Amino acid sequence: MCRWMAWSGQPLLLEELLFKTQHGLVDQSLHSRMGAETTNGDGFGVGWYGAGEGPGMYHSVAPAWGDRNLRELAAHVESPLFLAHVRATSGTAVQETNCHPFRHGRWLMVHNGVLKGFHTMRRDLMLAVDPELFNDFEGSTDSEVLFRLALSFGLEDDPIEALEQAVGFVEATAKRYGIEDCVQASIGVSDGVRLWAIRYSTEGSSRTLFASADASALRLLHPENPRVQQLRDEDRVVISEPFGALPGAWEELPEATMLIVQPGADEQRPFRPHVDAGRVNGAHALHAG
Amino acid sequence: MCRWMAWSGQPLLLEELLFKTQHGLVDQSLHSRMGAETTNGDGFGVGWYGAGEGPGMYHSVAPAWGDRNLRELAAHVESPLFLAHVRATSGTAVQETNCHPFRHGRWLMVHNGVLKGFHTMRRDLMLAVDPELFNDFEGSTDSEVLFRLALSFGLEDDPIEALEQAVGFVEATAKRYGIEDCVQASIGVSDGVRLWAIRYSTEGSSRTLFASADASALRLLHPENPRVQQLRDEDRVVISEPFGALPGAWEELPEATMLIVQPGADEQRPFRPHVDAGRVNGAHALHAG
Amino acid sequence: MCRWMAWSGQPLLLEELLFKTQHGLVDQSLHSRMGAETTNGDGFGVGWYGAGEGPGMYHSVAPAWGDRNLRELAAHVESPLFLAHVRATSGTAVQETNCHPFRHGRWLMVHNGVLKGFHTMRRDLMLAVDPELFNDFEGSTDSEVLFRLALSFGLEDDPIEALEQAVGFVEATAKRYGIEDCVQASIGVSDGVRLWAIRYSTEGSSRTLFASADASALRLLHPENPRVQQLRDEDRVVISEPFGALPGAWEELPEATMLIVQPGADEQRPFRPHVDAGRVNGAHALHAG
Amino acid sequence: MCRWMAWSGQPLLLEELLFKTQHGLVDQSLHSRMGAETTNGDGFGVGWYGAGEGPGMYHSVAPAWGDRNLRELAAHVESPLFLAHVRATSGTAVQETNCHPFRHGRWLMVHNGVLKGFHTMRRDLMLAVDPELFNDFEGSTDSEVLFRLALSFGLEDDPIEALEQAVGFVEATAKRYGIEDCVQASIGVSDGVRLWAIRYSTEGSSRTLFASADASALRLLHPENPRVQQLRDEDRVVISEPFGALPGAWEELPEATMLIVQPGADEQRPFRPHVDAGRVNGAHALHAG
Repeated sequence: MCRWMAWSGQPLLLEELLFKTQHGLVDQSLHSRMGAETTNGDGFGVGWYGAGEGPGMYHSVAPAWGDRNLRELAAHVESPLFLAHVRATSGTAVQETNCHPFRHGRWLMVHNGVLKGFHTMRRDLMLAVDPELFNDFEGSTDSEVLFRLALSFGLEDDPIEALEQAVGFVEATAKRYGIEDCVQASIGVSDGVRLWAIRYSTEGSSRTLFASADASALRLLHPENPRVQQLRDEDRVVISEPFGALPGAWEELPEATMLIVQPGADEQRPFRPHVDAGRVNGAHALHAG
Repeated sequence: MCRWMAWSGQPLLLEELLFKTQHGLVDQSLHSRMGAETTNGDGFGVGWYGAGEGPGMYHSVAPAWGDRNLRELAAHVESPLFLAHVRATSGTAVQETNCHPFRHGRWLMVHNGVLKGFHTMRRDLMLAVDPELFNDFEGSTDSEVLFRLALSFGLEDDPIEALEQAVGFVEATAKRYGIEDCVQASIGVSDGVRLWAIRYSTEGSSRTLFASADASALRLLHPENPRVQQLRDEDRVVISEPFGALPGAWEELPEATMLIVQPGADEQRPFRPHVDAGRVNGAHALHAG
Repeated sequence: MCRWMAWSGQPLLLEELLFKTQHGLVDQSLHSRMGAETTNGDGFGVGWYGAGEGPGMYHSVAPAWGDRNLRELAAHVESPLFLAHVRATSGTAVQETNCHPFRHGRWLMVHNGVLKGFHTMRRDLMLAVDPELFNDFEGSTDSEVLFRLALSFGLEDDPIEALEQAVGFVEATAKRYGIEDCVQASIGVSDGVRLWAIRYSTEGSSRTLFASADASALRLLHPENPRVQQLRDEDRVVISEPFGALPGAWEELPEATMLIVQPGADEQRPFRPHVDAGRVNGAHALHAG
Repeated sequence: MCRWMAWSGQPLLLEELLFKTQHGLVDQSLHSRMGAETTNGDGFGVGWYGAGEGPGMYHSVAPAWGDRNLRELAAHVESPLFLAHVRATSGTAVQETNCHPFRHGRWLMVHNGVLKGFHTMRRDLMLAVDPELFNDFEGSTDSEVLFRLALSFGLEDDPIEALEQAVGFVEATAKRYGIEDCVQASIGVSDGVRLWAIRYSTEGSSRTLFASADASALRLLHPENPRVQQLRDEDRVVISEPFGALPGAWEELPEATMLIVQPGADEQRPFRPHVDAGRVNGAHALHAG
């Protein structure tokens, strides 16, 4: 059920992390070690901030390991902040509009996991999406619904609150249908400046998510490693499973946690989904009107 | 905005009509003469009744003229009843789930045309779809919404009534939004036994639609033409624009007309979209519940 | 490096063996147990004999496990003799013209394995192909070269001799370049009547290949199994790795062996690559002219 | 038979010329006015010089007009020198390895036109390719053969001589086979610094090719046009058919002419294919060995 990674830091050619790293994300598309499946071959996507207006995206239905255009793009596009995602579908169609990241204005989101019972709840969840955002639905995944819910709950104004409400709303809907352990998620969201990374599941047993350790500590720890020595203080990788086995290089995010990678000190905080009765009712009222 | 054709009659290799006919549908994908566009290169699809359970389908995002698999399939699949469709998107994604025909059980539908203002009405139209059918939405086209509306209005029980109500409901919704001349359509529907072909538009100026003339008359008219001599009485082609220029071979369907191709005598009748207040209200009540 | 299967016997919907069988070929595309790789996701192909002239083919660059058209085709095409192949590229492009089977007239070939040092020998091998066949090269695989070599050595007239000479010629060429253990192959060839299945490698350690046991013996062995009871005497499956774990159901082909599945008693014989100096020289003379 | 364009000048987002220009190349993929076909929908490609090592490429089998990734790429990749090509196949497969540009090291080539009788001459032409380059053949087009011939005749050392010899060799081969009017070509070649643009055909009636007029002259001519005022002296577009109808903006290349766009003054010279007997014989000797 997918693997993803995000980079925030000095501008890099995408290939540095997608191809030139031991057990990078493209290798994880073929040989995932910690995922629900070993193969993530049902398409992939990359979103990056750089030249041009807003983030650029490349989506493909081909497996990431064999896509030549991805290799080209990765070797010739440089970015200080990008997200990449390899997909293993849990049933919805393999098509570009189902590939992550999803985009709205300057915002990107990737999701690894599943909304259990999505087929049953799909209509209810879509109805809670702001009507203006509803008409932009392009694909058929639970992940896109989650993204548009977060946007409907105010992602662009208060991302933490919006993401907690979106997940909370899904859980509340699942409860109505008697669906247990509904949300299984590791999520990455960015506006091009900050990166929000969430590890959360209703059952409290989430897909793995790791962040690279503090760059200054890593440089001290591995004076002999030239790659590590090139890391700058603001450089950070967030990823479903670590690249390699460098001791001290990776910190697993705890359950129900959000990491915020941002200029200056990064921040880690609990992730607590909840329902804001007022707003949901407001939305319902709006939609019924 | 697409071209389509349907065959009902003696079992034929699909290629007989798709490739081996002068100005067949695949040629129309590249050189349409009567369509809104000359090029229909945004994917295509074929649905056929034959071996196996229910209709088979082949959808592709490649232009029909260059797809080798279509050529293979057409040369090796035989069917007494099939529909084919070449697509020119009016904006929605080029993906297999947006290719016609759409299928539900034994039912297939193809559509050439557009629902004007669809982006605005999309949520309202989707809400009127039966919740059980809602969760099966796979693509993002107006045509799929029209198909699921027809199913919601009882296509499988009373296809004429259901199709008239589906189109009527779209027109009523458009009216609420102040959208004029909303429906532009030529539609083909089949259950594997009969074929319903509709030519209709709100403005009364519809995309073209033709049916081949009575086979017995054609044989008399063209004693020198070996292809025509092989036609049997039940053989019938319905198509957006005629194959060739054989005099007397094609009859244009009048505006607001439905042709029913079926075992025994075929039937032509007015197509009169309308709203059944009771059922629509019922649906609304259901959805609001 | 690929998996393949062939069916010869009573007409079957392809899905019976591709999808509805435990550990069928499509499952092997995602979870191969005996292959050089567990994932065979770099495209696939099916070739079948049935309606229409000569064998039909469907090739796709999508992984077999996720291709909807394959599912459709397999559920609606019936054939008494078909070959299917899932591909794991050893480097050449993922494109339809590199998917197996390859076809010439009524002949089909699939290949699992590799010609070691192919990049070095490619030009030499292609030069030995009959000039008329040379100009039909469409893809860039070693397998297509092997197929066109076999055709050049007379596949259509004397398939056993031609296949032995083709492999022998490759080995002789490899020897000139100092390439060891060049040919690694399990090969399936058919003309629509018979099926030739070869297990061979220069080093004498070949990819696995199995044939289903004699149908009459199987029916006696498994009186309780309804699927087995439906087998007819002429039914036979050849496959890279067995479907399931039914005791007595599968016989592994020995090293350097050719199995001929044909009307009447099947035949098993040694496969002995060799070089016919006269013919090769003749070919050279021809090409140099 | 294809359309292409090249840009050399100030760094631009690709979309400026591919999408945001009236009758830009993507529009020409759907509505070519001067091409042999109006539709160029059999794949496309872009090659650009910029970040990363050597030129980047994006190839796709989708029609350029509908490819979302092209739109993304074009909106987010900036380059001072790029080539783009939309393809209408004359029969060879629609696959990425048949899309232009072709690349070797820092060199890119695009071709609009056809080698008449290519199917007949293919083997002979391929045999004249340097054996080391032979083994890199990936696709099946006449254009790739022409590119590898030019490389074999020394493109990287003396591009003018190599291109004249490559075309000359093709013409000489055609003559041997009695093929008339063999070469029909407009060709673009670049090493990232200079751009060679050729208009040539054996019959002396070549596909159109245009270059934008001198930037300083254009600025004087159109003081009211803000786009034109932004042009810098070194900016130059070469294209199969002009973007728009701006008077004085485009100069048609004469028959049998090569334009060299380079830092400093550009250069126009006759293009005179010829055969260097010594080198060709040398090659033959080499190949026969």
